[in-house]
Amino acid sequence: MTTEISDITSEQIAAGQRAHELDREHVFHSWQAQGPFNPMTILKTEGSYVWDGEGNKLIDLSSQLVNTNVGHQHPKVVAAIIEQAGKIATIAPQHVNDARSEAARLIASHTPGDLDKIFFTNGGADANEHAIRMARVHTGKHKVLSAYRSYHGGTHLAVNVTGDPRRVASDNASDGVVHFFPAYPYRSYFNSTTEAEETQRALKHLEDTIILEGASNIAALVLESIPGSAGIYVPPAGYMEGVRELTRKYGIVFIADEVMAGFGRSGEWFAVNHWNVVPDLMTFAKGVNSGYVPLGGVAISPQIFETFRERVYPGGLTYSGHPLACAAAVATIEAMEEEDLVANAKRLGDEIIGPRLAQFKADHPSVGDVRGTGVFWAIELVTNRETREPLAAYGGSSPEMNQVIAAARAAGLLPFANFNRLHVVPALNIPDDVLIEALDKLEQALVVADGFVK
Amino acid sequence: MTTEISDITSEQIAAGQRAHELDREHVFHSWQAQGPFNPMTILKTEGSYVWDGEGNKLIDLSSQLVNTNVGHQHPKVVAAIIEQAGKIATIAPQHVNDARSEAARLIASHTPGDLDKIFFTNGGADANEHAIRMARVHTGKHKVLSAYRSYHGGTHLAVNVTGDPRRVASDNASDGVVHFFPAYPYRSYFNSTTEAEETQRALKHLEDTIILEGASNIAALVLESIPGSAGIYVPPAGYMEGVRELTRKYGIVFIADEVMAGFGRSGEWFAVNHWNVVPDLMTFAKGVNSGYVPLGGVAISPQIFETFRERVYPGGLTYSGHPLACAAAVATIEAMEEEDLVANAKRLGDEIIGPRLAQFKADHPSVGDVRGTGVFWAIELVTNRETREPLAAYGGSSPEMNQVIAAARAAGLLPFANFNRLHVVPALNIPDDVLIEALDKLEQALVVADGFVK
Ligand SMILES: Cc1ncc(COP(=O)(O)O)c(C=O)c1O
Ligand SMILES: Cc1ncc(COP(=O)(O)O)c(C=O)c1O
Repeated sequence: MTTEISDITSEQIAAGQRAHELDREHVFHSWQAQGPFNPMTILKTEGSYVWDGEGNKLIDLSSQLVNTNVGHQHPKVVAAIIEQAGKIATIAPQHVNDARSEAARLIASHTPGDLDKIFFTNGGADANEHAIRMARVHTGKHKVLSAYRSYHGGTHLAVNVTGDPRRVASDNASDGVVHFFPAYPYRSYFNSTTEAEETQRALKHLEDTIILEGASNIAALVLESIPGSAGIYVPPAGYMEGVRELTRKYGIVFIADEVMAGFGRSGEWFAVNHWNVVPDLMTFAKGVNSGYVPLGGVAISPQIFETFRERVYPGGLTYSGHPLACAAAVATIEAMEEEDLVANAKRLGDEIIGPRLAQFKADHPSVGDVRGTGVFWAIELVTNRETREPLAAYGGSSPEMNQVIAAARAAGLLPFANFNRLHVVPALNIPDDVLIEALDKLEQALVVADGFVK
Repeated sequence: MTTEISDITSEQIAAGQRAHELDREHVFHSWQAQGPFNPMTILKTEGSYVWDGEGNKLIDLSSQLVNTNVGHQHPKVVAAIIEQAGKIATIAPQHVNDARSEAARLIASHTPGDLDKIFFTNGGADANEHAIRMARVHTGKHKVLSAYRSYHGGTHLAVNVTGDPRRVASDNASDGVVHFFPAYPYRSYFNSTTEAEETQRALKHLEDTIILEGASNIAALVLESIPGSAGIYVPPAGYMEGVRELTRKYGIVFIADEVMAGFGRSGEWFAVNHWNVVPDLMTFAKGVNSGYVPLGGVAISPQIFETFRERVYPGGLTYSGHPLACAAAVATIEAMEEEDLVANAKRLGDEIIGPRLAQFKADHPSVGDVRGTGVFWAIELVTNRETREPLAAYGGSSPEMNQVIAAARAAGLLPFANFNRLHVVPALNIPDDVLIEALDKLEQALVVADGFVK
């Protein structure tokens, strides 16, 4: 155990135990079987650290659900919440509020191209729900295309658009959603052997799908700019440009989901910037205010805004543009600007994470693939590099993966794991030495994974 | 003009003007045509008052979107947000957090019957989305029954379940939603002439619908315990008990939507308490923390919880059980207990609002119907009491209603209006004298309405 007990009193630990009991008595958790679930208690958070229920200090390599982009308890964001709470905590969406206005202005100042009208939601799922609504009303069409191996949220339409196994229990072909296969070089669905081939074939497949589904009834294409929980598989060169071209050619609204990839995580303000692509609608949440207060939204192009200039937008929510959430967004974005965090994320990826993960791949036979950008990286663990047999099946876990995750925890990390993958998704401002220490710890888990290689 | 300029500096007014400009440049609003929309600026809020962009002090009879149940800037709730922000602003839903545990415990201590597992969402729409998910997985069935003249939220499934005109633009018969006619004595869909007849006929209609749709495929019935934006039409005696009986008889999950009616607004902790009815799932939002931080949720019965004991609940969201939102809920509920706000809401309804609205009806020919309970009341304006011709058509506005609303504003109120109705929905702790003053002001608007009586 390289963890340390610190800053935590025995009273805090006792309070944490009581919170754990109450949790098991009354809290129903997301995406869990409630009975066997034994959640970890978090007693304290600060910067890139969290303290668990026993007082162990862990390095947060997860950014929770990849949302605390400015780290935990950033003083500027905390101060802004405190100030706004004392001023106007809440106001209905139909009124003008200065925090909301300023958040919209700041967000629009960073969004690509001419996406400068902002509709605020509470999170990522409803951002996607409303973006699809806008596209459907704008085009008068119904179908929505989205990629397999994607995640777009937990409400009914958002989870139907989702392309990962979380969709299956709610699958409802009647929602007008059609899935296509994404570009994913490491496990190509198109038998490609090079990235260029993958781009070309994946785009041909997408165009075939559009033609066979009938472009005349497709309202929107929803795509994560860089798919996140589904594996941080950065699209190969030319793919995003191709998607933009096809959606333009066929009159389909292109919705880029930047809920996880946006707000600096990829080393650009938005991941689409890597390819200079401007979607028609862009959804965001998480990094917009690091999740300190629930907030999401849709950035809207002038063309789609025009549709709703004289015509009522048929959607809304009580907390659209919530002042407290918007004040946190203003402070987060200002902190990101002042501390140059987007450039820092790029530097951390280029200089520390990228090279170290390449070294992991060279040294550890369990590492099948490493990929990413900025502070947004995935390691695919396999039992065999030739066959690329994953350490846990798609959609599942395995005793082997659980041992790897336990080793990361024991080494003093709060890791982010999914199926056969470990993600390296720290805060954009994780100090270099803490990041290097975290990667050293992560390597201890890779040693465990190597033991399962056949 | 009986409004007063106070406590607002010229700097604040100038800042409000700048916020208004930025709003028009960058903020896309809920349920609006964006072009002609000219939102009101709010510069300050306190207790039962708000100050508009010119510095006019208005009595808030709307509680915004009927959510600020403890009024604006309640010091205890503000203090709790400030404290939690300085401690742990955010944490992922899979970890134990003390604010979340305590909020779940407190909510469960007030929910009816044995509804004591709490799933947290960000607002009312996603609460209903997840409740329907739970019902569908629990029953293995798909169809959902809901009432016309209802509102359940803005996401795709929630707006399809909705029974007011906001549904129409997104209507999608394929979502498995079937609408039935509610009990609504003032404009009976069943040609009833008494409340008893209305109850009997509306229940027969509901049972007919269940039989004709086929109970074997109906997962859930979603019903606002007291329909809110749709008109605060309190169900007649026996109706809710009858719905509970029918849903039990046919094995349908009964989801009571208490997003607006819950947390004391009706003069009981939850509106279902008026009839001692315990639903299988109960959704909430708004009053749970007065909307100071976005929060909603589902209270879950033991039977439905059992389904998800060993089986994964296939739903979730990044901000489920957000610490800041939960800390605000704890403080709100404690304030409601300490200040006995639920009993106060009942008293205000019984002693001040109810009698005064009855007097309005006696004195003003434009008042077709008054109804409500606690601090949850509606006035239906008509041009003719015999024909009950509404002052604005269902689903629309009218120049006449706009004049009535303008008169309420000019008198110094922030009113809540919908179609041909004015709602009286102040905070649970509005001081008696302020409430009486507000009702005096409201009467000035009724005089204007009287002018349109034919
Ligand atoms: C790409 C993407 N879209 C949408 C969502 C849904 O966001 P939320 O959980 O806030 O509803 C997520 C959440 O992980 C996401 O990663
Ligand atoms: C009864 C009812 N249900 C659901 C909702 C939706 O809540 P939200 O706007 O928080 O999504 C509302 C909002 O007004 C409501 O009144």
